[in-house]
Amino acid sequence: MKSIHVNLDKYSYQVFIEKGILKQVGKLTSQIINPGKAVIVTDKTVEALYAKIVLHSLSETNFDVKLVSIDPGEEQKSISTAEILYETLFNHKVDRKSVIFALGGGVIGDLTGFVAATFMRGIPFIQIPTTLLSQVDSSVGGKVAVNHLRGKNMIGCFYQPKAVFIDTDTLHTLPKEEMVAGMVEVIKYGMIRDAAFFEYLEKHLPEILELDDTTLEEIIYNSCWNKAQIVEIDEKEEGIRAILNYGHTIGHALEALTSYKKYRHGEAVAIGMIYATKIAIAMNLTDDTVLKRQETLLNRLGLSLSYNTLNPHDIVRTLYQDKKTIGGKLRLVLPTKIGNVIVSDKSDDKIVLNSLTSDTVSILN
Amino acid sequence: MKSIHVNLDKYSYQVFIEKGILKQVGKLTSQIINPGKAVIVTDKTVEALYAKIVLHSLSETNFDVKLVSIDPGEEQKSISTAEILYETLFNHKVDRKSVIFALGGGVIGDLTGFVAATFMRGIPFIQIPTTLLSQVDSSVGGKVAVNHLRGKNMIGCFYQPKAVFIDTDTLHTLPKEEMVAGMVEVIKYGMIRDAAFFEYLEKHLPEILELDDTTLEEIIYNSCWNKAQIVEIDEKEEGIRAILNYGHTIGHALEALTSYKKYRHGEAVAIGMIYATKIAIAMNLTDDTVLKRQETLLNRLGLSLSYNTLNPHDIVRTLYQDKKTIGGKLRLVLPTKIGNVIVSDKSDDKIVLNSLTSDTVSILN
Repeated sequence: MKSIHVNLDKYSYQVFIEKGILKQVGKLTSQIINPGKAVIVTDKTVEALYAKIVLHSLSETNFDVKLVSIDPGEEQKSISTAEILYETLFNHKVDRKSVIFALGGGVIGDLTGFVAATFMRGIPFIQIPTTLLSQVDSSVGGKVAVNHLRGKNMIGCFYQPKAVFIDTDTLHTLPKEEMVAGMVEVIKYGMIRDAAFFEYLEKHLPEILELDDTTLEEIIYNSCWNKAQIVEIDEKEEGIRAILNYGHTIGHALEALTSYKKYRHGEAVAIGMIYATKIAIAMNLTDDTVLKRQETLLNRLGLSLSYNTLNPHDIVRTLYQDKKTIGGKLRLVLPTKIGNVIVSDKSDDKIVLNSLTSDTVSILN
Repeated sequence: MKSIHVNLDKYSYQVFIEKGILKQVGKLTSQIINPGKAVIVTDKTVEALYAKIVLHSLSETNFDVKLVSIDPGEEQKSISTAEILYETLFNHKVDRKSVIFALGGGVIGDLTGFVAATFMRGIPFIQIPTTLLSQVDSSVGGKVAVNHLRGKNMIGCFYQPKAVFIDTDTLHTLPKEEMVAGMVEVIKYGMIRDAAFFEYLEKHLPEILELDDTTLEEIIYNSCWNKAQIVEIDEKEEGIRAILNYGHTIGHALEALTSYKKYRHGEAVAIGMIYATKIAIAMNLTDDTVLKRQETLLNRLGLSLSYNTLNPHDIVRTLYQDKKTIGGKLRLVLPTKIGNVIVSDKSDDKIVLNSLTSDTVSILN
């Protein structure tokens, strides 16, 4: 079993990565939390595939488990769904010694985390992410949130889980497009701080796409390890953590402008990474090879994206509503080379607009 | 100016206590936070009395201030009012470098703190408590919350303010009953860890009730100092902090059973303190003089409370729904002498019931 210790003083926790770990959830949890009341939050898709395994494992180790299953989809990441979950917790008589599991993708993780963070001012929760994206991104770092009409993740907290259990088995039932979208975040870790990992991905992409479990464990481990390194230094996103937003500022703008319906999160981030690189080139921070290598790798994933319906002026306007705006200034994460990025507020609207209106790059059909 | 440093590592802050400090809010805030967007949340009662002073002080120091005023009352401490406040923050283009002020009593402080804690995963906020209760209790310690139909403060977080400004002037416009209710919490600090302070209160009660500013500063300082000592050791209520709940477990049950309409918080806590002492006597933890001195002091406040309409069985049942229940066991804070309490799960339903049904104590008419 691979594991990563995320060191956040008294909020430290372990990320465990292993094929088949779902069957051990009860045993591993009972080593951290005394068996008592437990609630599993999941969605109907994941429930059908994995709820039984986790339920059985927890019941066997004497947890009094209640399962709650919501409809799948981003629109469930709302205050009103949070209120439904609060009701479930009250009805199951959950208290501060209980534990709540998030079994599913990012929506389930973020929503359940927000509920755990705010119910009775915080009850223990454990992440069991079942998509590649949630395994390498939202499960580490303690960002929990629901969406607001005015923007994604606008209502939330920083709240650390007690543990994260990652089972590569769940990737075998994941739709191909979800796998590809998750890979964008994996590539991001290579871009922002780990050139060797970027090269590993260039070399081993075939095994990844064939879902070779050993390779999957390796890329999840490297992604979570890189993220943990950053989060340990900057738990609350006051400095260095901002580099995790590489590709995300423009990506979020695209998602917001299309009401989160057109792009998967990873797809929007892929476009965001490409444009951030184009902006960096326009500012003489980096060169064409950095653009080329990202384009090539993203292309090999089989991403098929189109951006032609959006107005660049709308994108720029939306950028200023993103919560990464600080004191009214636009801050972008820009690459200098493979494995290094900087946070800059030196780009102006004109550079951004020019980059957005220049020839579409090769991944954009 | 009296001040207390609440030491919570990087979440440390100062509590400033001074007659007339409202006029200095802008100057003092600008020493902590760069002037930019600011929002003052208050209620209509407090707005009429103090909003202008604070607005003026902030404008003078170049804050771009928006005032939002809600109806007074506990029923505003809700998720739906929080959602209205989120809208205001979006409309005023608040970001993570902005600051939000809670100008008012506990409802305003708890609600505004919850909104600040959850908006964009946390924005800076400053407490300006205007009631004695909020000055000595909710303004220190970082507990923020809204109520839920199932119970008070059930949805919330731990989130520290950047500063607390306490102006004794505001107590001169406070209704007498509110002053008295706040004094119950002041007396609580003497009971749980500061016998000398309890004696000070016994001696100086007349000056307090005559609103002598120097005496008021003194009791607020001592209360906040005692609370800070506890919170510094146990920010998240995992241990010693539980002693702050002296009188509160039974108090909350009384409030819940009467739908928060019959008692002021302090009045319910006063009854809770008396019954906790009666339980402690029944368990041979303390003696009659500890009961007598509390009764006498609470009587001198002019408290007039009645408990005759409630069924003791209902109270016991309600106790088990309080969020201080841990793993299904009832935990009570019980006095051993003036200035010392213990946290005990050794009381059983029978002892609690007997104490609740014994002769009503003298403050209960």
